Amino acid sequence: MTLDYKIYDYGDLKLQSGATIRNAKLAYKTFGKLNAAKDNVIVYPTWYSGQHYDNEWLVGKGMALDPDKYFIVIPNMFGNGLSSSPSNTPEPYNAARFPRVTAYDNVKAQHRLITEHLGIEHVRLVTGWSMGALQTFHWGAMYPDMMDLLLPFCGSAKCSRHNFVFLEGVKAALTADAAFQGGWYKEKPQIGLRAAARVYAGWGFSQSFYREELDLKAMGYSSLEDFLVEFWEGFFLPKDPNNLLAMLWTWQNGDIAANEIFNGDFKKALGAIKAKTYVMPGETDLYFPVADSANEVANMPNAELIPLPSIWGHFAGGPGTNPVDVKFLDEKLKELLAS
Amino acid sequence: MTLDYKIYDYGDLKLQSGATIRNAKLAYKTFGKLNAAKDNVIVYPTWYSGQHYDNEWLVGKGMALDPDKYFIVIPNMFGNGLSSSPSNTPEPYNAARFPRVTAYDNVKAQHRLITEHLGIEHVRLVTGWSMGALQTFHWGAMYPDMMDLLLPFCGSAKCSRHNFVFLEGVKAALTADAAFQGGWYKEKPQIGLRAAARVYAGWGFSQSFYREELDLKAMGYSSLEDFLVEFWEGFFLPKDPNNLLAMLWTWQNGDIAANEIFNGDFKKALGAIKAKTYVMPGETDLYFPVADSANEVANMPNAELIPLPSIWGHFAGGPGTNPVDVKFLDEKLKELLAS
Repeated sequence: MTLDYKIYDYGDLKLQSGATIRNAKLAYKTFGKLNAAKDNVIVYPTWYSGQHYDNEWLVGKGMALDPDKYFIVIPNMFGNGLSSSPSNTPEPYNAARFPRVTAYDNVKAQHRLITEHLGIEHVRLVTGWSMGALQTFHWGAMYPDMMDLLLPFCGSAKCSRHNFVFLEGVKAALTADAAFQGGWYKEKPQIGLRAAARVYAGWGFSQSFYREELDLKAMGYSSLEDFLVEFWEGFFLPKDPNNLLAMLWTWQNGDIAANEIFNGDFKKALGAIKAKTYVMPGETDLYFPVADSANEVANMPNAELIPLPSIWGHFAGGPGTNPVDVKFLDEKLKELLAS
Repeated sequence: MTLDYKIYDYGDLKLQSGATIRNAKLAYKTFGKLNAAKDNVIVYPTWYSGQHYDNEWLVGKGMALDPDKYFIVIPNMFGNGLSSSPSNTPEPYNAARFPRVTAYDNVKAQHRLITEHLGIEHVRLVTGWSMGALQTFHWGAMYPDMMDLLLPFCGSAKCSRHNFVFLEGVKAALTADAAFQGGWYKEKPQIGLRAAARVYAGWGFSQSFYREELDLKAMGYSSLEDFLVEFWEGFFLPKDPNNLLAMLWTWQNGDIAANEIFNGDFKKALGAIKAKTYVMPGETDLYFPVADSANEVANMPNAELIPLPSIWGHFAGGPGTNPVDVKFLDEKLKELLAS
């Protein structure tokens, strides 16, 4: 079997937490070719529980992220099951003992992939959905001279307190299942995964999405319960619970200023971003509300706030669920890339 | 020990579901005195998991609900632990076998309490928060000639699909704990109750409430985690899980039109309400959004939409958590009662 993606092996990778992942691996997929000037690079990190496959909806001929024009690199986030994760790390750092990895750790490792391994010094654009947006903000603040453009969508530079609480609910539901066994399960805790899915279902889409019955009328499910079982439980069940919890920790502790560069000064970190940026929250996103994005934009020197006009909630931004939203986003990406 | 409330015993109470509760009991508390004309009656039903104690914040000298002027009746909802509930019903209808009770069943029983038992033919006002609002709408549609005024706040006439999904998450978290044992627990499932509490925490207050740190600055908790443990887990732990699930079912299936009077015709049911009504959603309520209330008001002949201007989310309406909101609500109640 040939993998459709590549692996970069760091050897020992030291993390902010003090832990070291031995033979740390970053799985990544590329689209298109690096041109001779090496100036056609787009970095496009993954989102919570997603793998590079789940990012591909935004890549294609004729789209902004066109592999005929750009060399697009999708690095898989640690914990997502392809890069180093609880599910694929050997003992003793496996499963529940997988170390806590920050967005800072992720982006620092991605930067090494891009520079040391791929020999790239300049990036045209960094973009991403949700936790991909979190990493996009990190790229901008940590390596402000390295890229021209940023387009974080449906995400934030720092996990808000409300977002933190929403994730507490997901975590509590998943781990309430005794079969979870503190992370040392032999078989997946089905009940906990399904409970986490049902908790998530209320957050992923907006009140208006459900009121307009878009789960039935636009997505084709046969009933609300069918949507909860097939879409939501079906989405969570294949995931590894420790992986989900590892990424959840990364999310809850996401903060561009929580590192030795900015020492917790959030405004300073936002102010350090030089790239021209479109910050695109979903207008009805329940966990990345427009107000948080507006606050970010107010503290960034070269950013514009462009809400996605959609009732699809968080899914206005991805993963390619609603064609109308994809078109709007793609046009903004084209506009930004043309500038 | 003397109870501070009274019990009305129905004998056999037949429910919409077809089940019968034998020796069905409705616990109620009254404030003030019924006047000679019997025209000073206010009915004020309870909310999800609340008991009449939890309604008393809106009753007091100088307030709209002044016991010196009005005879205020607070009927406890079935399932709340004081009226007939899983926790207090004898075998064989106890615990997980407690029958499904609708808001229609509740209000029909409350109507019997008011008319048969208390000898009252006319009600000045029905008001209530959250599921109390659901019952308020039912009163208006089921007994349209019986009252002058309605003021449902932070609630709806029908459980929305999104609200249904949010409650699925709470239910899934609570029942994911193996100690729940399908409702036949001997000891309370602590982990499940705490998980349900954490799920609820994200829904109860708004994104802005958490952003402004009102849990710390207004409510005095020492940290976000302190708020989650002391306020939220502390709120859920004393409750009986089967009671919570019984009321949750009542909520999820709340619909003023789901009965033999209206045969599912929601607009007809809303149109049947004759009382002058102030419908007061919380501006930032995450599960009773203003749009749902606006839709109700549009279908009611004599209703006005008055959103509560607050960032306290669902708790803008109760239970007396924020003095500014209580004042706004109390003034609207006074205005309505003076009309």
